[in-house]
Amino acid sequence: MTSSSKKNTMTKKKLIHSISQEKSIHPNDVRHVIQAFLDKMTNCLSDGDRLEFRDFGVFEVVERKQKIGRNPKKADVPIVIPKRNAVKFTPGKKMRKLIESFDD
Amino acid sequence: MTSSSKKNTMTKKKLIHSISQEKSIHPNDVRHVIQAFLDKMTNCLSDGDRLEFRDFGVFEVVERKQKIGRNPKKADVPIVIPKRNAVKFTPGKKMRKLIESFDD
Repeated sequence: MTSSSKKNTMTKKKLIHSISQEKSIHPNDVRHVIQAFLDKMTNCLSDGDRLEFRDFGVFEVVERKQKIGRNPKKADVPIVIPKRNAVKFTPGKKMRKLIESFDD
Repeated sequence: MTSSSKKNTMTKKKLIHSISQEKSIHPNDVRHVIQAFLDKMTNCLSDGDRLEFRDFGVFEVVERKQKIGRNPKKADVPIVIPKRNAVKFTPGKKMRKLIESFDD
């Protein structure tokens, strides 16, 4: 993998369309379910809960510690990068296997 | 956040149940849509595509370079950790805002 410009981007809209056709479920129902799913995931994470989906992976909120950065042009002036919360995603078994074989 | 033991774990099953009740859509339909959604995400990533969901975030496959590790008990024997693909998740604007305010 050398450049992100080669990558295609899959969006919610395209996934909704494809699931609706495949499962013969009205696109509006598919959209409502998927939007509720993503919203609930966001809410769980913001409450500090882990999300665990077998085969797919685990999401959790982790704290990144405060660190000292430097501006290369002003090397003598340290910049404090405050601690912050980040979302860590760990792929599940099936996902890991599949992405391992991918080589751009 | 001090320990992961404090965290609750949200599973697919619980999310399906809650979406089904909220949207009055049969749990089997909700399950099919969500499983198809997760499977399609996995397939896209294993093809090297990015996944971009507004507000939620972006998934992409990135390459972690080969690195040299050490076994602390055998410090003189380097261990080659081969390059591998990993999934990188970058939270979207809304998700970032919400998790920032979380403090355990």
